[in-house]
Amino acid sequence: MFTLYSMQRSGNSYKARLALAQLRVPYRLIEIDILKGESHTPEFLAKNPNGQVPLLEVAPGRYLAESNAILWYVAGSSALMPEDRVNRAEALQWMFFEQHSIEPNLGAAYFWLTLVKGGRELQRHAFEDWMEEGHRALGVMEKRLALKDFFVAERYTIADIALYAYTHVAHRCDFDLAPFPAVRAWLARVAAESGHVTMDFDPAAVAAAK
Amino acid sequence: MFTLYSMQRSGNSYKARLALAQLRVPYRLIEIDILKGESHTPEFLAKNPNGQVPLLEVAPGRYLAESNAILWYVAGSSALMPEDRVNRAEALQWMFFEQHSIEPNLGAAYFWLTLVKGGRELQRHAFEDWMEEGHRALGVMEKRLALKDFFVAERYTIADIALYAYTHVAHRCDFDLAPFPAVRAWLARVAAESGHVTMDFDPAAVAAAK
Repeated sequence: MFTLYSMQRSGNSYKARLALAQLRVPYRLIEIDILKGESHTPEFLAKNPNGQVPLLEVAPGRYLAESNAILWYVAGSSALMPEDRVNRAEALQWMFFEQHSIEPNLGAAYFWLTLVKGGRELQRHAFEDWMEEGHRALGVMEKRLALKDFFVAERYTIADIALYAYTHVAHRCDFDLAPFPAVRAWLARVAAESGHVTMDFDPAAVAAAK
Repeated sequence: MFTLYSMQRSGNSYKARLALAQLRVPYRLIEIDILKGESHTPEFLAKNPNGQVPLLEVAPGRYLAESNAILWYVAGSSALMPEDRVNRAEALQWMFFEQHSIEPNLGAAYFWLTLVKGGRELQRHAFEDWMEEGHRALGVMEKRLALKDFFVAERYTIADIALYAYTHVAHRCDFDLAPFPAVRAWLARVAAESGHVTMDFDPAAVAAAK
């Protein structure tokens, strides 16, 4: 069985939890609070020298890091993975875009505004860049979604999961989605997908309650 | 035949040119000077709304963006692609790490210090962050390369190409590689790989001279 090291309020961790839930893959969940330094203990750094969650133990002692690589791995050849080589590459294109243009801006704003007390003051110098580049990246998504219901292969895939994670909480951290109607309609479509779970979903709590 | 939109001095474009050269895949090369705004013309934005190179036309009118997605696509099931699913996911892990931790720091420093006149002054506020986060990321690479000759699957793959692009020019933009002997040894191993071409390599010029 997989073991997922995850932080409940992390968008990157949510990607893995959402895909595993929709694929009905059982796994052990270990909560790591990065705000308490739990991803920088010697034990955790031995598993992931980059000190980040999510981290998936795919075989005993074999660890896979980076949320989008985990998504790609767990999707395998399931319905969440596009079928042909060009579409698979295009899914990766949008996932690299997510890590380069969405996560460092929307994700950073989310982290400092909603998770870190006093984060707005601490990161005052960076907010303007995050807002400007984040809105630009949302504009790129809007152009795509004005033409298509989902990012790749005309259906819901790991590319949508990757981009959904931080976009669906953008309104909580100063981003205005009003100018992006196609993005808003896509957010609703993703949330309506079969087996969808919210970021607050805690499979351990659900299992314990059964 | 593929058409590659590339900028000669771009590390991200170099990844695609290096892989295509080593795989002996013929392609048409179109030089795009992003410093002259050539990636933001209406014609180019119709091909890539994100306004970036490299961009690969994989079929007539079908364009693939993001350097690492292009690498994944052109590698196919060649020797540059790891064989099994875990190793392939691990290659993607290092390629996402590259786009998240190396390119925005080493790549940004390279761009502003070596390509943009007066770049050091223009980006003075950002250099300290790039240096700090860039050296931290080099430390993560060093830990891996102290244990292994290449990043994944015990051999040279697209993960090495992705990480080589900006790491091999780090010394030109203020990064000190002296504390990273395993990284320096790996740079030499990559440069010694069969079919290696330098970033200055221009296949169009070579073809024209034939």
